[in-house]
Amino acid sequence: MDKQRLEQQIRFIIEIDKLKTVLRQTQLTDQSRRENSAEHSWHLAVMVLLLGEYAEAGTDIMRAMKMVLIHDIVEIDAGDTFAYDVAGYADKAEREQRAAARLFGMLPDEQRAEIDDLWREFEAGATAEARFANALDRLQPLLHNYVTEGGSWKHDGVTLEKIRKRMQPVGEASDVLGRYVEAIIEDSLAKGYIPTAPS
Amino acid sequence: MDKQRLEQQIRFIIEIDKLKTVLRQTQLTDQSRRENSAEHSWHLAVMVLLLGEYAEAGTDIMRAMKMVLIHDIVEIDAGDTFAYDVAGYADKAEREQRAAARLFGMLPDEQRAEIDDLWREFEAGATAEARFANALDRLQPLLHNYVTEGGSWKHDGVTLEKIRKRMQPVGEASDVLGRYVEAIIEDSLAKGYIPTAPS
Repeated sequence: MDKQRLEQQIRFIIEIDKLKTVLRQTQLTDQSRRENSAEHSWHLAVMVLLLGEYAEAGTDIMRAMKMVLIHDIVEIDAGDTFAYDVAGYADKAEREQRAAARLFGMLPDEQRAEIDDLWREFEAGATAEARFANALDRLQPLLHNYVTEGGSWKHDGVTLEKIRKRMQPVGEASDVLGRYVEAIIEDSLAKGYIPTAPS
Repeated sequence: MDKQRLEQQIRFIIEIDKLKTVLRQTQLTDQSRRENSAEHSWHLAVMVLLLGEYAEAGTDIMRAMKMVLIHDIVEIDAGDTFAYDVAGYADKAEREQRAAARLFGMLPDEQRAEIDDLWREFEAGATAEARFANALDRLQPLLHNYVTEGGSWKHDGVTLEKIRKRMQPVGEASDVLGRYVEAIIEDSLAKGYIPTAPS
């Protein structure tokens, strides 16, 4: 038994408890509070499990699962950047690079490399696994905004154009999910859940 | 595209958002609030990813991952039963059976069967995958109680004997993790984190 190795792993496991205190813009479906990034990551992981059939043929579902589990860990240091916050996106990459170095650097070398690779692959979005993981990361808040009759769209004055742009990767990853998202957007528009002009 | 199938899956995905409002006895490590079962499940899934090397040889890690992701979903209807609550355990099984029937029953048939099987396997604890998943489900709150200098042990007057009994499955699943847990218990005792008599 390599005691130092296990201690590194446990210290990281204790450290990432902090992701439970990083809040997103999205409300829970009962609107009792904002969602945190840890429970959001769990939700995505269950979605990977249930919606894997809509990913591109040959997608490694276990790899996509790993990606959604670790994709937000950098937010412990870098914070959550709201999808529609232009200013926040300016230095997002730099903040997250530093966060990845510190946080993943707590792990034994080969695990640090594995998690770091998964995170970079998710961010680049260039593989089938990353496309699928990114699609679910966009579909999940859409469902929350739909169920809460506008949720963070209304709260932050997000327009139809911005929502369509934000949801574009869903259709690129999966025709079925892309059509589903478009139907949800159409219905949200008809029901007045989407602001018609920026607030 | 089977529209009804996707709608069943999405309805289930929206329904399980409620797990984020089911509170456990365990405190977050910063002691700001109690942990919920959704973020707890995420924490376990990352632990599966990082500690898989300590599972019995031949353990299907992906299966253990699926188990920890879905193991608490029945709590949406049945509530979280505190590990040291004897009265609560009396009708736990019956409450959870009804919850499983309703919740997993929302899914398309073969997915209902898959998730139901995973949950029953976890509960029975008779396979290597279930033993590993159960071990992590006990290790994680131990880490929280250690980091919070006694946390829910102190709050609920949980004794050394009860903690040792509760942690027994960890050693049964993994020698390394079992020895680690024993060291944490010894240190907790030395530091006064464990109540010496029931409160």
